[in-house]
Amino acid sequence: MHQTEEAVAMKTSEAGPFREVRVGIVGYGTVGRATAEILVGHAEEIRQRTDGVSIRVTRACRKSARNSERTPEGIPLFSDWRKVVNSDDVDIVVEAIGGTDVAYDVVRCSIENGKPVVTANKALIAQFGEELFSLADAKRVPIGIEATVGGGVPIIRAIAEALAADRIQAVYGIVNGTANFILTQMETHSVQFAEALKQAQTAGYAEADPSLDIDGLDARDKISILARLAFNASISPEQIAVTGIRHIAATDFHYARRLGSTIRLVAAAERSPQGITVSVEPWLVERDSMLAKVDGPNNAIFLVGEKVGTQMLYGRGAGGGATGTAVLSDVVQIAKHLARGQSVPNGLPGFHKPEKLALEQRTQPVSWYLRLTVRDHPGILARVADAIARENINIDSVIQEPHMPKERLSFVITLEPVGERVVRRAVDAINKFEFMLEPVLVLPIVSSC
Amino acid sequence: MHQTEEAVAMKTSEAGPFREVRVGIVGYGTVGRATAEILVGHAEEIRQRTDGVSIRVTRACRKSARNSERTPEGIPLFSDWRKVVNSDDVDIVVEAIGGTDVAYDVVRCSIENGKPVVTANKALIAQFGEELFSLADAKRVPIGIEATVGGGVPIIRAIAEALAADRIQAVYGIVNGTANFILTQMETHSVQFAEALKQAQTAGYAEADPSLDIDGLDARDKISILARLAFNASISPEQIAVTGIRHIAATDFHYARRLGSTIRLVAAAERSPQGITVSVEPWLVERDSMLAKVDGPNNAIFLVGEKVGTQMLYGRGAGGGATGTAVLSDVVQIAKHLARGQSVPNGLPGFHKPEKLALEQRTQPVSWYLRLTVRDHPGILARVADAIARENINIDSVIQEPHMPKERLSFVITLEPVGERVVRRAVDAINKFEFMLEPVLVLPIVSSC
Repeated sequence: MHQTEEAVAMKTSEAGPFREVRVGIVGYGTVGRATAEILVGHAEEIRQRTDGVSIRVTRACRKSARNSERTPEGIPLFSDWRKVVNSDDVDIVVEAIGGTDVAYDVVRCSIENGKPVVTANKALIAQFGEELFSLADAKRVPIGIEATVGGGVPIIRAIAEALAADRIQAVYGIVNGTANFILTQMETHSVQFAEALKQAQTAGYAEADPSLDIDGLDARDKISILARLAFNASISPEQIAVTGIRHIAATDFHYARRLGSTIRLVAAAERSPQGITVSVEPWLVERDSMLAKVDGPNNAIFLVGEKVGTQMLYGRGAGGGATGTAVLSDVVQIAKHLARGQSVPNGLPGFHKPEKLALEQRTQPVSWYLRLTVRDHPGILARVADAIARENINIDSVIQEPHMPKERLSFVITLEPVGERVVRRAVDAINKFEFMLEPVLVLPIVSSC
Repeated sequence: MHQTEEAVAMKTSEAGPFREVRVGIVGYGTVGRATAEILVGHAEEIRQRTDGVSIRVTRACRKSARNSERTPEGIPLFSDWRKVVNSDDVDIVVEAIGGTDVAYDVVRCSIENGKPVVTANKALIAQFGEELFSLADAKRVPIGIEATVGGGVPIIRAIAEALAADRIQAVYGIVNGTANFILTQMETHSVQFAEALKQAQTAGYAEADPSLDIDGLDARDKISILARLAFNASISPEQIAVTGIRHIAATDFHYARRLGSTIRLVAAAERSPQGITVSVEPWLVERDSMLAKVDGPNNAIFLVGEKVGTQMLYGRGAGGGATGTAVLSDVVQIAKHLARGQSVPNGLPGFHKPEKLALEQRTQPVSWYLRLTVRDHPGILARVADAIARENINIDSVIQEPHMPKERLSFVITLEPVGERVVRRAVDAINKFEFMLEPVLVLPIVSSC
């Protein structure tokens, strides 16, 4: 079984190294353009890191490109992605279109052509990752996905490589910068959700249709990818229960403050006794916690390993510079292998022969924040308290801001630790009361992050 | 220049893969033993991450080993490290002795034998890294150093791989868990330095001779490694000015609290106009900052990239579990390459053909905290203020706790932003005053981390 390094070295030098690796970029929006600009602007830094190998963009594709158009850097632009993917002068394809239609064809075709492909597309990888990695495995071609989660934060490497020898217990955190920007605007400026959303759109963080971000669907794609990697488990996004942030009101931040806390949209995956639990939902977190310190469009992801303990990686979750840097981290790694005449290891855990693990509902008890919005009249608290007592749940506190209008009054009840199923039963009963103006807002209270 | 992946794949399969990679561990203390235990305990997790390759410890070395001794896992223990490094049944050597004597021989001999070597030894790499990487390069053998800085925090990968395409502006943070434990004990329990040090020793964090930790020498080795990687610069630890934490007193935490701050020992490297600045010293940081949130023996390292923005990586900075996981992250990566019949890229920037960059004194103005300990009599403040005014420095505030003994009175002066050279001149003048009982404690006040 033993083989000398000399033999390996000889083979490598026989193969003859690339001194230049050529990249084709499909999709020339924020991420595609930033990727090209970094490759040009940081050519010297990159050469240092690749031990002398140059990486050059030879072709790019933008749907609206005109005939013979070039980018400001002089890169030929094509409107047909096949002109990039099928070209002999492209060694690595960067897919930066987004979506799951054309992007799927681009990635598939690159792999079928035997070309390494790097993508920032979480929706594509969340939905079709298993199929694409299986094809890539057959073709011995790598797919780089560092940019799919956490922007420039190297969370894919952290799970797949740095913690390769550990047993990961949990991965959770803030993975959607737009939702986090909205929540921190509400927190800092005491504005309502609609106003904070408008500010996010003005700042360029939120799309005209912000649903993917604020309803938690983007976070759901990302946590499905992280959970696959962490637990080597086959998980598709549709299996994951998701609660967005549309129903968080300015008043929730007032009450959160009174509880020494704030609110963050958290995507979480952890081992449970029978399988794993995965969720996307807003959490009430202590003002003093690291999660609470993550403001604006930043991301922060916690990893809990049996041996390594708790780690946290923090940084810009989106934007051309951060995402382009992540794309290029994969491009550089692949280029270094090509330069040595080597194929690249392509089997990411969770995408390559994953296990089937059961997705469980969270069962361990946590505390809960319930915000009720009611048309006030005498006896409401008694009836609500009774519904909670019927499930054998202890109330920890009842908080009501003074001077609220009786026709639309909000108050908060916090509950002592109890499992989610039990709380949901109590909440279902409360939601049926005729004085309820909207469903109870239910947030888990998480104290130790 | 173009070469098909098929050709590569063929060559790889010709070479025939390893299905088992054999590890020899030299040094069987906390880190060595933890590394072996994780390999045994997490064999299944590791096989998933290596696509079926087993990693097994075949030999270990402990100086005190008796004849035919075995570890509880059944691994043969030798007292002579050559029995591990020179053995045919060892493919990868883990150096976990520490120090720069025998460890140097072990690493050098492994490389000369053509064996990949993984080390947690920051002193060795800080001092001899350039020489060892140069030898490794000639022999086409990789050296894994993820465990040298940050314990389980994957900071080496983050700089060398994740930010490979970015231009790094700064890297700074808390890299010595023992010093951080002592400072947070002083902060939390209002104890003096000597008492906090004793607590660190009781808790197993500090050595009998704690000098490496509390005088900042360990942090200096680590920041020299990080600065090399970040700036591709040849830096040796002796070039770096270092201030430890021996002179921090309980009263400094009182004053820091009044300033909304606390104290952390920070190692920092950043680009300066003419070169780079590297330092290890205690900083006054805002209570609300992320650095202040890092307590106990944890580490937190910030990376500032031109494109990627500010990132932070946080986690356990020491201990067998965290360090063993970091060691194994390198072992797994090397094993994956061996299993494919490939040599491993070994050129880490900064160790492999680094640039010569000038080490500069920090010139940009920051605010300063000066704590003076004096035998009190009238006119002291006037003379101190005069010494400061002579350097054209503005005083921001003067704080003195009430009811202090006149024979040993401490008070604090904070200064508006000014360059370090100017402050040092003023402090030199103050230190000459006959009423000074000890030299002024000088801390930079850093507001944005």
